[in-house]
Amino acid sequence: MTVNLREMRKIVTVSVLIFLFAFNSCRNSDTQNQVETELNDQIFPLGQKVTNSNFVGTVWVEGVLDADSLNHIAVGNVVFEPGARSNWHTHPDGQILICLEGVGYYQEEGSPIRVVNKGEVVNIRPNLLHWHGASADTKFVQLAITSRLKGVTEWFGPVSDEDYLALIR
Amino acid sequence: MTVNLREMRKIVTVSVLIFLFAFNSCRNSDTQNQVETELNDQIFPLGQKVTNSNFVGTVWVEGVLDADSLNHIAVGNVVFEPGARSNWHTHPDGQILICLEGVGYYQEEGSPIRVVNKGEVVNIRPNLLHWHGASADTKFVQLAITSRLKGVTEWFGPVSDEDYLALIR
Repeated sequence: MTVNLREMRKIVTVSVLIFLFAFNSCRNSDTQNQVETELNDQIFPLGQKVTNSNFVGTVWVEGVLDADSLNHIAVGNVVFEPGARSNWHTHPDGQILICLEGVGYYQEEGSPIRVVNKGEVVNIRPNLLHWHGASADTKFVQLAITSRLKGVTEWFGPVSDEDYLALIR
Repeated sequence: MTVNLREMRKIVTVSVLIFLFAFNSCRNSDTQNQVETELNDQIFPLGQKVTNSNFVGTVWVEGVLDADSLNHIAVGNVVFEPGARSNWHTHPDGQILICLEGVGYYQEEGSPIRVVNKGEVVNIRPNLLHWHGASADTKFVQLAITSRLKGVTEWFGPVSDEDYLALIR
């Protein structure tokens, strides 16, 4: 038995189309997985964009739980976009930071910058001057756990570009 | 021009092999993505398996931060496997639970079971009798934030299957 040229071309064309279809479905499926992974990674909504002058860059805050007469612990989710950071500040009863996603920087007065990765915790002692924020090229998602027993945060000046960039120079 | 049967078979065989290779690569890539997503979702290590009798089923605890003389807030990550739950208990200064992943149940004495989904918070009042755990078919990953100012957890009896299954009957 023999096959003529026209039939041959048809078979090759159909094979190529099947391959392209399979390849394209595969690629779409990968992209879809990536989008779902990114959405799935967000535990809390983005919240509200911070508009006060205690931060430099774009920062979002979602109030997870407020303190009240029976609960003195406030919990908030803060998203620092790359390069964004808090001003220097202190907490009268300390604060606990947990990195939920991305890469953050944390610095206490007189100490070098510490890099904070996903799942890492920062135990900030009462009245210790410090700042925290995103790394220069990656956002930083942090859960902030703050005792309100002894009052509110005291704010100082912004972190200079010199201080901020000290780590990556 | 004509092609003989042997050449024809060769071409079809090669086309089928290319298709199977593309299809299999795609499937492997999906599986790989799924595994990476699951690993990526874990913010904390699984920690230690709980061996005390305050829980029913398989429960893992990772101590994220202990309380000390300058910080009175303890943070722990608890993974309840499907069907696992705490016994009834109270916290002298309350507790905050945050669902990081999966589906949990929470019940206060005399109230119906509340379903707790990812990103949802439970504000447990001081000395309120309650229990929490995984739903029957999905694990529950919770961050537990506990003030140690007024002492430690007081434990009571296990949750009966009748109480546990009340929601899904």
